[in-house]
Amino acid sequence: MGGDHGPSVTVPAALHFLASVPDARLLLVGRPETLEAALAAVRARGARRRSAVPDDERIELRPASEVVAMDDPPATALRSKRDSSMRVAIDLVKNGEADACVSAGNTGALMAISRFVLKMLAGIDRPAIASQMPNQRGGTTTMLDLGANVDCEPEHLLQFAIMGSALVAALEGREQPSVGLLNIGEETIKGNDTVKVAAELLRASPLNFYGNVEGNDIYEGTTDVVVCDGFVGNVALKTSEGLARMLGGYIREEYRRHVFTRLIALLSFPVLLRFRKRLDPRRYNGAALVGLRGVVIKSHGSADAYAFEFALRRAYDAVRNGLLQGIAERLPKVVQAGASAPARGGAVDAAGASVNQPTAP
Amino acid sequence: MGGDHGPSVTVPAALHFLASVPDARLLLVGRPETLEAALAAVRARGARRRSAVPDDERIELRPASEVVAMDDPPATALRSKRDSSMRVAIDLVKNGEADACVSAGNTGALMAISRFVLKMLAGIDRPAIASQMPNQRGGTTTMLDLGANVDCEPEHLLQFAIMGSALVAALEGREQPSVGLLNIGEETIKGNDTVKVAAELLRASPLNFYGNVEGNDIYEGTTDVVVCDGFVGNVALKTSEGLARMLGGYIREEYRRHVFTRLIALLSFPVLLRFRKRLDPRRYNGAALVGLRGVVIKSHGSADAYAFEFALRRAYDAVRNGLLQGIAERLPKVVQAGASAPARGGAVDAAGASVNQPTAP
Repeated sequence: MGGDHGPSVTVPAALHFLASVPDARLLLVGRPETLEAALAAVRARGARRRSAVPDDERIELRPASEVVAMDDPPATALRSKRDSSMRVAIDLVKNGEADACVSAGNTGALMAISRFVLKMLAGIDRPAIASQMPNQRGGTTTMLDLGANVDCEPEHLLQFAIMGSALVAALEGREQPSVGLLNIGEETIKGNDTVKVAAELLRASPLNFYGNVEGNDIYEGTTDVVVCDGFVGNVALKTSEGLARMLGGYIREEYRRHVFTRLIALLSFPVLLRFRKRLDPRRYNGAALVGLRGVVIKSHGSADAYAFEFALRRAYDAVRNGLLQGIAERLPKVVQAGASAPARGGAVDAAGASVNQPTAP
Repeated sequence: MGGDHGPSVTVPAALHFLASVPDARLLLVGRPETLEAALAAVRARGARRRSAVPDDERIELRPASEVVAMDDPPATALRSKRDSSMRVAIDLVKNGEADACVSAGNTGALMAISRFVLKMLAGIDRPAIASQMPNQRGGTTTMLDLGANVDCEPEHLLQFAIMGSALVAALEGREQPSVGLLNIGEETIKGNDTVKVAAELLRASPLNFYGNVEGNDIYEGTTDVVVCDGFVGNVALKTSEGLARMLGGYIREEYRRHVFTRLIALLSFPVLLRFRKRLDPRRYNGAALVGLRGVVIKSHGSADAYAFEFALRRAYDAVRNGLLQGIAERLPKVVQAGASAPARGGAVDAAGASVNQPTAP
């Protein structure tokens, strides 16, 4: 029900996803009449186009009478909307009926409800938001945390590294992903005390720790995983969005300047289209809320059906390739290696920050 | 003497700068034979092209026998190289012979020596690195700190806001620049304790405080000044560099794909050139080390003569428009307004981070 567009986006995406993934099943959670109407609309469109409409038995509706609004404070969503589609969906994960929950709704609420209902994995203190960013090598860099934790201890950064490694293993099939610690210089003397201690913990761990990386390394693809606290990660992500939008705007302006440049733009269309496609933020849609006892994927609120389907695929891949087991397996080894540094507890800022994917120009 | 290219860049830039600014005078500091040779080379080139070569009496050589290497630790540069060009140049500012020092050398060393020799302005605890970034509105956003301070107290962020405001007033002639506090959401409840308290200090100050801004606001030009701690600022800056490089690389690749796209690229050349010019990082070269009792401008180490001249112009503008007085005048008002929050002292991480301007694609 969530996101800027609700079922008019999530339902078509869900059906399209089912059509291409034969062993997937979907539980659509929300107001039954709204979901039925959205389903009927897609089927009518499908019939007109004679395109495949997946079997009914792979779709099940689960009623939920309330909807978490995009601007509901997390506490309100958690305490006052116990029959929201978000809450019911996460309850389904909790009781084992669903393997994963995908939502385009309010990030803070999703985080708070997930944490309250699912609880944390043993050995993980705080959930983190992880997303994949396109990089220069043509692959992706998995970055976390992107805004769930505004203050982090070194142990949290180590835990993010574990979860990021498991995520890359599950989503990209790389078993020993390299991990970089986001810092303001490559030398070990750089940075604040938190990253210096985190670097020591990472070095002592069995993870494939590369060392310090800088902001530019995210897009250079120096490492598979980039670890940072949620404040820094969120700023890096949103700065990227802003820069990409500005550059895109500049390109448009320059091409629109006069008749000649408009003609060039027309001729350049295939080039610009390829360029755009390559950076299409929709392909990177679907941030993982990691550290929970369940798979929860957050789609961009403004996602269209194409983008939302990518979020569904991420959830599917994460479950199919054992994300949770991957985290659990990596954890004891790391905890053993760094036994001298017991993990400290700490409250998470569940209010978090809204997380968006970088916007292509 | 500093930077990746030394006098082969700084000397031509200096002469070109002098030719266009009639009331400027330059003291070139470094190894006399190297500087003489660079000067002679420029003059010979100028004579061949019959271009104006500025009067000799506006250039003076000041000998310095040593050079701070780009990888010298700041402490080494400070303690063991007392006759370095960097040290002698800053001494000239200290004793009033020069109004400003411009260097393309080692940032950490420049910061450490400046701080040791010049000392801080009364009421300012730590120097900060401030730079101008292009924004969507066609203007610039002044951002600080970009890497001098990895841990900041709220009072430091307030001081950065004062210095940033004075810098915009001096360099852009805007008397009451708007100030944004970099955070992970616009709402006052967002962020860590440091930014929350800093927001209160800023709100109570006579500065033109806009409120919280997010990463994307830097390039949207929401405010004239964006204030953040040096860790976050450095990551934002370098992330931008990485993204711009990646996008530039993608554009090049797409245009080079085959004969047709190469032809389009040729036709698009004027458009791409304008686009490139608009974002040319060389035009934003020259970060200010603010908070010191003297004007010190840091050029990008890889700057060419065109870029280095911009750094010289920034130094000239900062002096001509009374940057230091601007900071001093804003300070007592702010301190009065926020008398309940005494500024705490604190050591600066002079090792800092190398600061680079965003790289255009």
